[in-house]
Order: sequence, then structure tokens, then C-alpha cells
Amino acid sequence: MTITDVARRAGVSRQTVSNVLNSPELVREETRDRVREAIEALGYRASQAARQMRTGRSRLIATRIEPDRDGINGSVLDRFLHGLTASAARAGYRILLYAAGDERSEIDTFDDLVGSHEPDAFVLTSTYHGDGRPAWLRERRLPFVTFGRPWGDAGDANGVSGRETAADPGHPWVDVDGAAGTAAATRHLLDAGHRRIGFLGWPPGSGVGDDRRSGWAGALTSAGIDPAGLDQATDDGVADGEKAARDLLRAEQPITALVCASDSLALGALHAVRSLTASGQLTASGRLTAEGRLTVAGQAGGEEGLPVRVIGFDDTPVAKAVGLSSVSQPLAEAAAGCVGLLTRLFDPPSPGDPGAPGADGPRTHVLLQPSLVLRQSS
Amino acid sequence: MTITDVARRAGVSRQTVSNVLNSPELVREETRDRVREAIEALGYRASQAARQMRTGRSRLIATRIEPDRDGINGSVLDRFLHGLTASAARAGYRILLYAAGDERSEIDTFDDLVGSHEPDAFVLTSTYHGDGRPAWLRERRLPFVTFGRPWGDAGDANGVSGRETAADPGHPWVDVDGAAGTAAATRHLLDAGHRRIGFLGWPPGSGVGDDRRSGWAGALTSAGIDPAGLDQATDDGVADGEKAARDLLRAEQPITALVCASDSLALGALHAVRSLTASGQLTASGRLTAEGRLTVAGQAGGEEGLPVRVIGFDDTPVAKAVGLSSVSQPLAEAAAGCVGLLTRLFDPPSPGDPGAPGADGPRTHVLLQPSLVLRQSS
Repeated sequence: MTITDVARRAGVSRQTVSNVLNSPELVREETRDRVREAIEALGYRASQAARQMRTGRSRLIATRIEPDRDGINGSVLDRFLHGLTASAARAGYRILLYAAGDERSEIDTFDDLVGSHEPDAFVLTSTYHGDGRPAWLRERRLPFVTFGRPWGDAGDANGVSGRETAADPGHPWVDVDGAAGTAAATRHLLDAGHRRIGFLGWPPGSGVGDDRRSGWAGALTSAGIDPAGLDQATDDGVADGEKAARDLLRAEQPITALVCASDSLALGALHAVRSLTASGQLTASGRLTAEGRLTVAGQAGGEEGLPVRVIGFDDTPVAKAVGLSSVSQPLAEAAAGCVGLLTRLFDPPSPGDPGAPGADGPRTHVLLQPSLVLRQSS
Repeated sequence: MTITDVARRAGVSRQTVSNVLNSPELVREETRDRVREAIEALGYRASQAARQMRTGRSRLIATRIEPDRDGINGSVLDRFLHGLTASAARAGYRILLYAAGDERSEIDTFDDLVGSHEPDAFVLTSTYHGDGRPAWLRERRLPFVTFGRPWGDAGDANGVSGRETAADPGHPWVDVDGAAGTAAATRHLLDAGHRRIGFLGWPPGSGVGDDRRSGWAGALTSAGIDPAGLDQATDDGVADGEKAARDLLRAEQPITALVCASDSLALGALHAVRSLTASGQLTASGRLTAEGRLTVAGQAGGEEGLPVRVIGFDDTPVAKAVGLSSVSQPLAEAAAGCVGLLTRLFDPPSPGDPGAPGADGPRTHVLLQPSLVLRQSS
């Protein structure tokens, strides 16, 4: 069933049928009715391919499905993908999914997709210092939004080299304020009377990791505590987290509470607390229950939180299962924000509209606030 | 840059350019070279939309992203999606993702996609009794494969009503042998000396749930044990699992081990064991460590597995985090199997090929074996 069949039945040209479908105001009412009757009688539906040839729009948003790593932290981006699929559908778009092992292969995939399925836009996840993807897309005038702010070049947070930064972005982005999350976690522990609050994070140079560390350090400094010597950096993972936490727990002046850059690290920290407690190497003797709750050995009732408190990041299903407090990202909201910014790129609001650019320019980014979910571990 | 530009530069017709792209053997070598030089000089690339108009192939495989529910069991289908994206890419396909709340809205989405992006095939997940989706796709001759076998009509496992069944499928499918998984878990517990081995599953009528229950019941029966009265059915979820496990643990003749249809139920069972132990209501007094390990209270060393063993299903990140033994599905292999069966639909092997239909007909399904991952909980 093609546009030609419709044209033949209605006794008009193919151009007229096309006009009825795309610019009905150009067609006289009587002709319009005749074409619509033919469309209905023949059950004709413009295929997306044909529509795309005419409109240049595929109604596809391309995004990457990221490796799920140990299944703990990777689940965050899976939840983002769930939200993105739902938000995109509400705006009339489908998600085109691709996998890519590194930046080079992701850019190769952009190139391939642009020459094949022609997505209307890209949603990039997990931005990093020196991220080469935004420039590639921008040079080709391909619409995109990033979930993750632009971090600038490595070692050059102000982006002097010309790369975009969060303060001066060349594209719309959505992010969650990680520093606000770790600061809230740190303040919660300060309020509970802790002073030696450690931080377990990733090696310097990761935008996300440095941001989360800065929230912890800032909260301590504001409370008059020097954060020096209270943190450890390690690769992400449960075993790495356990090892680094042991160092902080066995220091001459051990920490009494720990804020972590991820739930994987925090789970490792819980393991370290448990094994050091079991072997009598913790000053305060404690015992972890199945939910990660620390109980003082021999204590009646035995379930009051003590002695080393741990807070993770991302509020994964694992955190919930083991009773780990954690900083939660509003992922459905982040996904909706990405689709909202893309829709605005396609159909910019007219001046005077509520969403129109104000005196301080167009709203090209969304920074969302995380929340602290408290469980037994803190 | 269109095919017309290429034709003009090479001094040939548009049809000739199209032939060079799609059926080069029809074109004389000298002409072919001239067209290819023009293509290269102009940087022309056939767009997928244009190619799709000619070939009728979109190189898209559509699949549903399922709700992640409590984030524990839902993670299984996310992992399947990771595998599917990678396997599809290797075969030259991309994944088109959609969300759908129920069967009606999923079929509406099929209808919408067929009229818009025209996927070459569908991968359906989570098949169930009376599943109306396969018939809808088959009637329209749309290629698809299901991850999950056809279960027939509800209450009519033999499919007498004409609906397809696993034994007589109307379409290719991939599944994991759930009954083999719970049977292996049950045999492991029998070998450890347990006799009163319970089962925590879902209400009868779920194909997947009944299959998992049958593996447990069969293994007990083979060992001369009557499974009657040793199981509980409940909705999936940690709180539901805890409640149902309490009933089995507080029965007049309590169970000493438990096989569960999901990790959510198993996590609930661990909670029940812990809280009953803490309040002194379990015959054997035990205590769960942070990893779900049961230790006899007061016992020196205190970490020998005892007294109630629990095995879950799906080997989720949560199972790993809490030390829960679990039945593991080979999800990457299942995803590769789905893509493999689809590719065979598109390009059937010729007779004599290794993959060609044998005396017992075409290989239209793949039933994979799960494995048992043992941790502290058993």
C-alpha cells in the first residue's frame, strides 16, 4: 500500500496526497476529504521510512547501554534507561540502543548510526574529563543532551583549553548534584556526633568521583575538621572497597564513620568492619547483622546502630537488601529532564511562552538534588 | 547528497547507481568502478531510510524494557538486554526499545512500530499462559522469537485449545530450564542431609513459577519424600517472602532448608530466619552474619553454616552481596540464542549446511541449562 495507490483512488497527484499528510492547509477542503476517504478505505499508513524521507525525522533517540560491571553500580544506568524509554515514548520517540566499549568505538557507532538509522538525537551518559564525544556531535550539528555535566579537560576544571565546562556548556545537560549528596551524608554523621568521618572514593581525575569527594571535604571543613588523611582512593568494587576501608579502620586514629562514592565500595566497607570486628581488631567491638546493622556484641537486645557507620551512594537494590544507608539519585526525573531538553531543541518555545529564554539566557541544563536514604548502617 | 548526485557525476542512471549498491553483479565492471569513484568523491552514503525503502529491511530488532519492580529480580531482564544489544550488534542489528504496561498496550505498540519504524523482528520476554502476543505477530507474519517458552493456555498446559505450546511451538524460542535449576538446588540440600526441604514460590498458574516448583517437587519425590505441605505460594517480594517463610519455619514440623523461586523471596526468607532466631523461636538457635551466613550463637569461631539453609533463583547482585546461594541463568547465552534463531529466520541455512534442518525438523528452540552458585546461605 503506497502513496501512489492512495493518489490513484482519490484521483489526485502523489504530491497532493503528500500535502494532505504533511501540509493539509495547502489543499482545498473538498480534495482533502477525498484523499482522507481514500486513505481510510485503503488502510494506508505512511511508513516511518517514507515519512523520514520526507520529513528528515526518524523519531529515534540513540543511547548507549553501559556495561553492568559488578551489577551493583551499573544498575543505576539501567534504571535511567527505564526512565528514558518511558519519557521518550510520552514525547513520541523510541530509544535506539547501542553498546560500545570505549570512546573510539562509541564515536564510530555515532558515525554508523548517522549514516544508517539517522537518530534525531543522542543521549550521552557518564561524561568525563576530556570527553571527546560532545565535540564530535557538535561539529556535525547533531542534537544531543548529556546525563552528566561537562567536566572540562582533565586537570583543567575551568576549561581554559576551549573544551566546554558545566559553567559554559556548549550543549544541554542534566546531572545530579553529587557533592550535595555526600555533604548531606557527612552532615548527618556530624549531627550524630562523629568527628573522624572518612571518605572512600576513586582515584583523583574522575569528574564524578572528585565531585563526590568535594562534598564530603567541604562539609568537614565547614564543621572545623581538617579532612586530610581521612580518605582513601581505590578502584570501584567490593573487594577494593574492603581493602581500602581496612586501612582507614586500622589507622592509628581510626575513623568512626565512612562516606563512600558508591554502594560497591560501601558494601566492601561493611565487610571490612565485620571481619575486623570478628577478629577483635576494632576498638569498639561490634557485630553486623544480616542487614548490615552493627550490634555491640553481648549487648541486650543487641540491635542499636554502632560502632562504625557507613553511607553509600546510588541507593542500589543491594543497599536496600543489606540495610545500607545511601545517597539516592532521582533517575526518572533525570531521564525526563533529558527528554525535556531535547524536545526544546527540536521545538524551541516562542518568546513569551513560560519556557522561553529569560534575561539570563535559555535554560540549557538541569542540576537535580539527590536525597539521603537512611537505613541501619548509619 | 543523494543517489541523483552520484548518478549525475558518474554519468549513469539512478537505477544503475542503485544496482551498484544492491546488486553489483548486474553492472559491468567499468561502470561499477565509475559509480564507486563517484560515491567516494562525493562522500555519498545511502541512508538507512533510503535503503529501507529499497530493501524493506530496517535492521532493527524491537524489544520491551520491563519494569524493574523491586530492582532485584527485574535486574535479570536488564542483563538479558545487555546481552541482546551486544549480540544484535555483532549480527548487524540495533535494538529498538519500548515500554508497555500490559499485553494490550504491548500489542498496540507492535501495531504502532509496524506502521512506523518497521522492525525486522521482535524479541518477546516473559511469556505466560494464554500469552496473546505470539498469535498476533504470527497472524501478521512478523518474525519474532521469545525468551521464555510458550506455556499454552492457563490451566491447559497441553495447549488443546490450539494455542502453541513448548512441545509444538509455532515460533522459535529460547528458555532456561528452571525445573532443572530448582532440582539441582534441592539435590544439593538432600546431599547435605536435609529431608524437610521447603519451597517458596508464586501462586499456581504462572508458567515460570510452576516449572520451578516442579523441579523441587520432582527431586523430593525421587528421594522418596512427599512434598505435600512443604511449600508456600505468595506474591514476589521481600516482605511477602519473609511472611511465607515464617509460616514454613514455625510449622509443627518446621523445614530445615528452603528452595525459592526468586532471590527476592529468598532474601525475605533470610530475614525470617534471622528474626525468628533473634527472638528464640527457631529450634536450632542461630544468627545470620552480614553475608547471610547462619552461625550458632555462642559457638566458638561461630561461622559454620546452620541451621536453615536457603537457595534463591537468578543469582542477582543482591544474592552475591548477602552471600545467598542461587540458581544462575546463562543470560548472555540466552540473548545470543535469540539473535541466532532470528538470523536463521532471515537467512535460512541451505540443505547440507551444518545448521540446516535435520531429520527431526528445523531447530526452532534452545533450552539452556542453569547452574547452581553456592555461597554461605547453603
